[in-house]
Amino acid sequence: MIRIKLVLAALACATVSWGQTDSLRVSQLFEAAVARGESYALLRELVAVGPRLSGSVGYDRAADWAERTLQRVVAGVPGARVYRMPVQVPYWRRGPVGRDGRPRPRERVRVLGEAGVAAQDLAATALGGSVGTGGRAVVAPVIEVFSLDTLAKLGAALQGKIVFFNRPMDDRQPMPFTAYGRAGDQRRRGAAEAVKHGAVAVLVRSLTQAHDDEPHTGNMSYDAEGKKIPAAALGRQSADRLSALVRQHAGLRLSIELSAEILPDVSQPNVIAEVRGSTHPNEVIVAGGHLDAWDNGEGAHDDGSGCVHAIEALRVLLASGWRPQRTLRIVLFANEENGLRGAQAYAAAAAEEAQRGLKHVAAIESDAGGFAPRGFSVDGSAGRLARLRGWSGHFAAWGAERFDAGGGGADITPLKPQGTLLIGLRPNPQTYFDYHHTSFDRLKAVNPRELALGCGAVAGLLYLLDQYGAD
Amino acid sequence: MIRIKLVLAALACATVSWGQTDSLRVSQLFEAAVARGESYALLRELVAVGPRLSGSVGYDRAADWAERTLQRVVAGVPGARVYRMPVQVPYWRRGPVGRDGRPRPRERVRVLGEAGVAAQDLAATALGGSVGTGGRAVVAPVIEVFSLDTLAKLGAALQGKIVFFNRPMDDRQPMPFTAYGRAGDQRRRGAAEAVKHGAVAVLVRSLTQAHDDEPHTGNMSYDAEGKKIPAAALGRQSADRLSALVRQHAGLRLSIELSAEILPDVSQPNVIAEVRGSTHPNEVIVAGGHLDAWDNGEGAHDDGSGCVHAIEALRVLLASGWRPQRTLRIVLFANEENGLRGAQAYAAAAAEEAQRGLKHVAAIESDAGGFAPRGFSVDGSAGRLARLRGWSGHFAAWGAERFDAGGGGADITPLKPQGTLLIGLRPNPQTYFDYHHTSFDRLKAVNPRELALGCGAVAGLLYLLDQYGAD
Repeated sequence: MIRIKLVLAALACATVSWGQTDSLRVSQLFEAAVARGESYALLRELVAVGPRLSGSVGYDRAADWAERTLQRVVAGVPGARVYRMPVQVPYWRRGPVGRDGRPRPRERVRVLGEAGVAAQDLAATALGGSVGTGGRAVVAPVIEVFSLDTLAKLGAALQGKIVFFNRPMDDRQPMPFTAYGRAGDQRRRGAAEAVKHGAVAVLVRSLTQAHDDEPHTGNMSYDAEGKKIPAAALGRQSADRLSALVRQHAGLRLSIELSAEILPDVSQPNVIAEVRGSTHPNEVIVAGGHLDAWDNGEGAHDDGSGCVHAIEALRVLLASGWRPQRTLRIVLFANEENGLRGAQAYAAAAAEEAQRGLKHVAAIESDAGGFAPRGFSVDGSAGRLARLRGWSGHFAAWGAERFDAGGGGADITPLKPQGTLLIGLRPNPQTYFDYHHTSFDRLKAVNPRELALGCGAVAGLLYLLDQYGAD
Repeated sequence: MIRIKLVLAALACATVSWGQTDSLRVSQLFEAAVARGESYALLRELVAVGPRLSGSVGYDRAADWAERTLQRVVAGVPGARVYRMPVQVPYWRRGPVGRDGRPRPRERVRVLGEAGVAAQDLAATALGGSVGTGGRAVVAPVIEVFSLDTLAKLGAALQGKIVFFNRPMDDRQPMPFTAYGRAGDQRRRGAAEAVKHGAVAVLVRSLTQAHDDEPHTGNMSYDAEGKKIPAAALGRQSADRLSALVRQHAGLRLSIELSAEILPDVSQPNVIAEVRGSTHPNEVIVAGGHLDAWDNGEGAHDDGSGCVHAIEALRVLLASGWRPQRTLRIVLFANEENGLRGAQAYAAAAAEEAQRGLKHVAAIESDAGGFAPRGFSVDGSAGRLARLRGWSGHFAAWGAERFDAGGGGADITPLKPQGTLLIGLRPNPQTYFDYHHTSFDRLKAVNPRELALGCGAVAGLLYLLDQYGAD
């Protein structure tokens, strides 16, 4: 039996012979991910735990799954451990939760049937962090605006009004993430700004490039000292319809009911796997994604795929017989969607470790979906970017050769003060916002081969960073 | 009224000011395609004509639609014309056609229930060009093989057998088109080779990377002097099931019924729009795709998207006020799927034109789906490739910057003897074979933004080729 195991181990090692070129090594990692990979099966397991927004029992189940899965991946590897890092996270929910752990929200935004207008429902869902309407409806006239800047000019005209932010994502932007960034202030800051002028609620056009009526949730926040007013997203078609109605009917009134509630913070963990480096154990390289997800879909792209990219990259590397020279950590962050508390806690712990001589040299985040990888964005000096571009050829055959200047990602950015080289995996972004923060973000929206290619890209870059360091 | 029209025309021209850089011009074409484009509406119209395989009434309707659409696009443009180029095309069909023009095939591949095996149907569909079984069933033992090379070794063992070709596409190939190319001989040549050893029918594992049971059709052909035996594709899961059964049960027998029929050739056109060049009218630049499509889906990716890429590229260019210096043609080819007769007829006509001094300097083909464009493959000298790579930066913001050495495409390759620079649009290829030649290739499988981006890429390259020529 031992003899069989030895033979199998020898065969496993033979599949990746480390005497060959880096391009070949990277290709072998891609091949292992696409042809003998587990990424799609892992993603299926993760989404099966149910909705996993911070605070929910679903998140606890996801953390249990992650811990079990990472333990399996590192089993038998010397210097490996899996651990939890407790984090206090906010607990917001869309409404009461059924016995199955799924939300049973009551969310209704309705155009009132009066003054010649036909009563009609609009497709809407609460923004994350919004207060509810306390079992009653907020009824008020609506006013349409297109930017936060307009609010000050309108001033008293906003008093007692529902403010409807309707600036769309700009389709002319080549990269949808840019368009998202430029339209996102309405969602994040709309309520906090509108309430300063006496608004009673806000509605925000969904951040999407699809021509459908699906409302896209996402986080918003209030000023600590400000009043909290309800905030909801409208589907794109509903926003267009409401816009037309507002222009035709002065004084158009809406009714808004939201069952959202803010509960006390709870402790939920970052889940981490570490493999201690053989020759440079004090240099840490991180790869990760966030384990929490919005409650309306399955978080398959956002960010189940990112978690799987990191887990499967480690699995593929270890299964090939490879062991890291530097200390490698897979970090599955808590609470990216509505708080970033997991990222902050991890960065704080890393800062403490730095006092003890442990340096976070590089971090790779995947939080842009499970689509075919195009390459990486790099938040580092021009010299570091140029150095990474020197590796571009290793990824070219697989279509993942771009190394562009850009942000690494929300969960690793708090490491920046420590001089960490921050890198974001960049999949094809063109359809991401068709799914983002909606009920469409489900397993079936992720293509198994494209998901596996992302794992190969992360594995390849981890291999190179471990081999050659960040500088 | 005229005054308003003039103002509108001036505004339209102002949106693309040709005094600016090439990068800006290319970006403006992309922007027009994604933000004010008609590509998805065009594709919806095209698929609405119904199945449009060569010979079918659907192809005639598609040709009518293409002619009307191109006439609208070039309306009012000096030196523009739309014309048909008649082509004799093969007329193969899967079976009787209902009043709605949709096929009513009878296709059944069944494992016989005998010798301890449970009777069961396999997911199957005739390969294009296959004879039918003449209203009866072919019943014979099955033998599994993995390459054409094996046939000669097996020799007499194939006599009276159904040959089951089961070599899969190789998932380890980075580019699915490479894997497709390497597995495709079984489909194209399997029947012609197997019949030489006395086989009575062939079944071929579908060329797919999806893990489903959808059979993928596609063309096959017989040797002129050989006997014609029925040939069908099996869904991947059915192929795996049959493979397991064959290994367990010696002498396993199958029954195959196919209603396919080969009818006399008919005349169906290439549809062409031409805008005569202002300064180099004797240099012709072509952009095109193929108008025919397999009958089991809507041909939305293959190649409705390619047709729309070309039509919409011309529309966007002309709507911007641009007029070509060289003669530009949009060519919608007949009969790519099962004959290439449209391509051959166009190349023959181009050779005649060459006698009169007209030179085809460049041709762009789009026949790889409506996914986000990654760039182009270039079939030309190293010098030409290097020159095109000099334009890469104009496409980089839009993610379409790759210029790789490779084939231009099946419909433009016959132009090669004339020295034409051949270029293929290369969209993200990773999911193409999930849809290729199946019932899944429908409008809803095409993302509107990704389709529009492909139009922008073709428009941008047409602009540059027209501006600077092919050399």
